[in-house]
Amino acid sequence: MFLTNWGQRAETLLNELAACSEPGPGVTRLPFTPEHRAALEVLKAAMENAGLKVSLDAAGTLVGRREGPPGSKTFLMGSHQDSVREGGAYDGIMGVVLSLLALEKLCQEDEELPFAVEVLAFADEEGVRFPTALIGSRVLAGSFDPSVLDMRDGQGITLHDAMVSFGLDPVAISALCRDPDDVIGFLETHIEQGPFLEREGEAIGVVTAICGIERHQVEITGETGHAGTLPMKGRRDALVGAAEVVSEVDRLGQQTSDLRATVGALTFEPNVVNAVPRKVKLTAELRSPSDEIRCNSGLALHGFARELASQRNLTIKTQKTYSQMAQPCDRDLSRRLTQAATTVGQQGLALPSGATHDASAMADLCPITMLFVRCREGVSHKPEEYASPEDMALAVSSLSKFLRSV
Amino acid sequence: MFLTNWGQRAETLLNELAACSEPGPGVTRLPFTPEHRAALEVLKAAMENAGLKVSLDAAGTLVGRREGPPGSKTFLMGSHQDSVREGGAYDGIMGVVLSLLALEKLCQEDEELPFAVEVLAFADEEGVRFPTALIGSRVLAGSFDPSVLDMRDGQGITLHDAMVSFGLDPVAISALCRDPDDVIGFLETHIEQGPFLEREGEAIGVVTAICGIERHQVEITGETGHAGTLPMKGRRDALVGAAEVVSEVDRLGQQTSDLRATVGALTFEPNVVNAVPRKVKLTAELRSPSDEIRCNSGLALHGFARELASQRNLTIKTQKTYSQMAQPCDRDLSRRLTQAATTVGQQGLALPSGATHDASAMADLCPITMLFVRCREGVSHKPEEYASPEDMALAVSSLSKFLRSV
Repeated sequence: MFLTNWGQRAETLLNELAACSEPGPGVTRLPFTPEHRAALEVLKAAMENAGLKVSLDAAGTLVGRREGPPGSKTFLMGSHQDSVREGGAYDGIMGVVLSLLALEKLCQEDEELPFAVEVLAFADEEGVRFPTALIGSRVLAGSFDPSVLDMRDGQGITLHDAMVSFGLDPVAISALCRDPDDVIGFLETHIEQGPFLEREGEAIGVVTAICGIERHQVEITGETGHAGTLPMKGRRDALVGAAEVVSEVDRLGQQTSDLRATVGALTFEPNVVNAVPRKVKLTAELRSPSDEIRCNSGLALHGFARELASQRNLTIKTQKTYSQMAQPCDRDLSRRLTQAATTVGQQGLALPSGATHDASAMADLCPITMLFVRCREGVSHKPEEYASPEDMALAVSSLSKFLRSV
Repeated sequence: MFLTNWGQRAETLLNELAACSEPGPGVTRLPFTPEHRAALEVLKAAMENAGLKVSLDAAGTLVGRREGPPGSKTFLMGSHQDSVREGGAYDGIMGVVLSLLALEKLCQEDEELPFAVEVLAFADEEGVRFPTALIGSRVLAGSFDPSVLDMRDGQGITLHDAMVSFGLDPVAISALCRDPDDVIGFLETHIEQGPFLEREGEAIGVVTAICGIERHQVEITGETGHAGTLPMKGRRDALVGAAEVVSEVDRLGQQTSDLRATVGALTFEPNVVNAVPRKVKLTAELRSPSDEIRCNSGLALHGFARELASQRNLTIKTQKTYSQMAQPCDRDLSRRLTQAATTVGQQGLALPSGATHDASAMADLCPITMLFVRCREGVSHKPEEYASPEDMALAVSSLSKFLRSV
């Protein structure tokens, strides 16, 4: 056994993978493209180096398998290979790299496991190229809707044709869904995409749940008029109403524990300097690891809107346009992951995942858990995205310890 | 002397003039166009019918003159002939029509006046075709900047060339400015463009002052992040800051007498549903007949922004981007106009003008006053713009009474 600097290995591999990108700032690697192909070559070599048997499934997921004893179940790990446009070198792909390095470490240490392990590199999680996402994980979980194969990218190419051009057989997808009885669980490793671990001074953390999400479209209609000639008294200014909604959504988020509440999108008309605003459309997004907290907050928002409409003589339509349940992480797996973190000198802090991940889809198949790695200034989806080799080394050690404990 | 239904006459004339429009909804009559030419023909005939001597000055202002005794001064009346795109049949042009009908009424009544009167139909007040406005009135007041002759319309035609094509001589413009000693005053009649008179149940009102205007650009910079992953604590959400500014501007307007305060324009980035807003730019507009109230309110807004920036850890830049002094109406002329209104059974209610008018520019030349006519639901700049024949008849009577009192 020789000593390996796992953090350095991770960084080198991630740099090599970051080069598999469209030209331009940061990393742009969309699914079923030459950049995707190039990344698969790098990952394949690294997986083989870790003693894994590599194959590409019909949905474009690269699978590196370490066999277990005959008849044993399989533990799944990994994340996605794709990036957003002009994204970073860590989001997604780091989870694949650290997982395969953890297996390489076990291999070096001649550690036997009583189960098989597969490292998965999903083709598409971000949903940037096609108006769908989580393709590979949904295929494994059996929740993939074949009609999305007809969806087209910006060039008019269907997902079906993009997959065929990539050498895949979309017809074979339906056979890929796994038998829940054969799968122990899925562990996704990912940068935090937030500042929590950095603020706490911890390299890694264990996810309690992937937050549920709901979005409410709030449409506020008042009455426009000339900003100079319309008296203040009796004005029905839609933007003044919207300002109260924005403040209330923030107040809800600030005063409700385990809730994140944001108005990120807002448009209004006529949006000219000397006209009283007539109509505002905004979207309020609520996220919580607790479905109860999230739903109650949504109801509170609707109640606030009703009150506001009557106070300000505005017409306010409030509609829940999107809802996604929280996916709690498996208690047993998360407990073991926390223990593994403490063996490498970390507290194993618990935190929710505010973003959706492949693990969200995998939760339909098997118990899930997630390991978050501190990222600089909480930045993701940008060229500046960064996780340090030291933190990644701690993650690799935790993952290998975890596998020995499952 | 025969009885004339002046309201009916006004409506008929305005309908005829509304036909001088580009095709499409409402009235579109831009300066120095075939539609402008057609309107001048209608106005010329109506002016001649009122016993006026008609000429077109080098700035495109149609002038209908009623002579006074030799050596007497001149009183000016009127408004503009142009409309916004898809505007109404009353804004501007009604002030020309009612003025010439008032003179026709005096003529019918064989009334002598100790001064000359001119009815003016300015070519351009709205500033829709060229990025300038108030051309004709500024020319008379001597405040016209000749460099605007180089400004171009959407087709790339300069104002200079548009005027030449219309048969005008832009070189002669500089000679048009009037001698203040020869001018008694200017009275502009206009639809209110607001709901005040309608709410008060009055047909006409007398303007106290044309409001001063200031605009403040407020630029709020916070920090973006993923709406799911960025904890609420420590967020620097630029839109949450902007919401407080919008509320404060409205509160200032509601709680300060003689102030209208509006945020009509706002943009922000990134403006996507799952991102905390990073930067907001908004414009707050303050209007008041009192420059002191307006300036103090602007200072209060800047103070509020400074406080908010420190409370919410935001960077807020506040800049006054535009400022225009209030133009008080002449007390003596307004008093006589109020008296004239009472002789036709109106209260002669006083109200400020929130919008700018040709009278704003004419105030650089001579004392001004304005008569507002009730318009339905306060609507202007739209095809639905409407003033009733009954109200216009009362305005014609008031104008003729007024002229006899000057």
